[in-house]
Amino acid sequence: MADAPYKLILLRHGESDWNAKNLFTGWVDVNLTDKGEQEAVRGGELLKEAGLLPDVLHTSLLKRAIRTANLALDAADRVWIPVARSWRLNERHYGALQGKDKAATLAEFGEEQFTQWRRSYDTPPPPLAAGAEWSQADDPRYAHIPSDVRPDTECLKDVVERMLPYWYDGIVPDLAAGRTVLVTAHGNSLRALVKHLDAISDADIVGLNIPTGIPLLYELDADYRPLTPGGRYLDPEAARAAIEAVKNQGKK
Amino acid sequence: MADAPYKLILLRHGESDWNAKNLFTGWVDVNLTDKGEQEAVRGGELLKEAGLLPDVLHTSLLKRAIRTANLALDAADRVWIPVARSWRLNERHYGALQGKDKAATLAEFGEEQFTQWRRSYDTPPPPLAAGAEWSQADDPRYAHIPSDVRPDTECLKDVVERMLPYWYDGIVPDLAAGRTVLVTAHGNSLRALVKHLDAISDADIVGLNIPTGIPLLYELDADYRPLTPGGRYLDPEAARAAIEAVKNQGKK
Repeated sequence: MADAPYKLILLRHGESDWNAKNLFTGWVDVNLTDKGEQEAVRGGELLKEAGLLPDVLHTSLLKRAIRTANLALDAADRVWIPVARSWRLNERHYGALQGKDKAATLAEFGEEQFTQWRRSYDTPPPPLAAGAEWSQADDPRYAHIPSDVRPDTECLKDVVERMLPYWYDGIVPDLAAGRTVLVTAHGNSLRALVKHLDAISDADIVGLNIPTGIPLLYELDADYRPLTPGGRYLDPEAARAAIEAVKNQGKK
Repeated sequence: MADAPYKLILLRHGESDWNAKNLFTGWVDVNLTDKGEQEAVRGGELLKEAGLLPDVLHTSLLKRAIRTANLALDAADRVWIPVARSWRLNERHYGALQGKDKAATLAEFGEEQFTQWRRSYDTPPPPLAAGAEWSQADDPRYAHIPSDVRPDTECLKDVVERMLPYWYDGIVPDLAAGRTVLVTAHGNSLRALVKHLDAISDADIVGLNIPTGIPLLYELDADYRPLTPGGRYLDPEAARAAIEAVKNQGKK
């Protein structure tokens, strides 16, 4: 066991095809856009400039997070570090909303329902049927997950519950061994982790957003709790601007 | 334990910067050329067309093999499979020849010495000094390897000896579990593995070359021995042409 502080770096994947098209994505395995690839490279450059060189990588099973990691690690000259992947780091499963246009969904269901599905802590959208167009029911990468834990829709609370076992059993042991850990994942799986780390209430997590492509460093004490609440973005100005932009989006 | 036959796919990385420049590479961590990247993508397409979808990836610690795997798996839509990496799959360490021009080395040392270094089974080139330009003595990716097993030069016999423990302890357990295994590695680490699999003599291995970017499938029996000696290239015609071209190179 190494001594604290432990170093944990969170990196949300860059812009994806469906971010750009304003569709609900969830577990649908879309690619990064060119802009998303550039964000990933920039994320890796920030790691290198800060001398924060990951010793091990944890990713979701979705290629937008995997590609973000590959590009960032290439920019930081660390593609050779060990990798672990888990469905528990996947984006929130968006249920029946997967593949749907956000604006059309808002128009169809009204603002109250729309906001509840997007932002409430404990109300999942309707489940996605196994035969539906954007279902992952037959995807071989999830074949090993028993049906009683395999989601067909999730609220953020569900994401916290399925993510935490991987935090404790997959990531913490690497931190305990003194490794600088990079986690490349998604808006909601990272919100779930940050909620846990910073002990954010169910009410307050609703207002928290994590910008894409900017590494977020947490230094953790011996109990794996942040020395500085909220951690530290490696490009704080860009992070502030991105968070502000998301807030203003909500006001339109 | 799953039943034989087990499926093992070997893939040699595509052309690298230093292949193109005719320099001895060994453990120097050079990039793929554009042509090398295209070879990797084509390798992945061949896997997909053959319905040979890897369940797990093993790579060396060198980025030309890692990038080849990433590109091939992306083309086969399998970037999400588990990955293990080991220095034991690295290219042969070329000792004091690393970074040297092949033609200049031939001119300096004469054909007999040159051919012995390149092709003899058990004569390594002179060792590379720790402070030399192309040494990996300070490379953090090898920091965990005790100095008594960490090479500073290798002949093919040395590669066989350091590679085999990873074959038995890293790769065979995945085969035993019924997984289709993809190994992306290098000309000499793959020759070492093929020598073992096909029980090729020390004399005969000298004449064996593995072309870049063409997946080589071995179906293995319950003793992890090939059902068909030499395995089967997924593009046999291209493999034949590439092997022929290497032979003719030697005649120039």
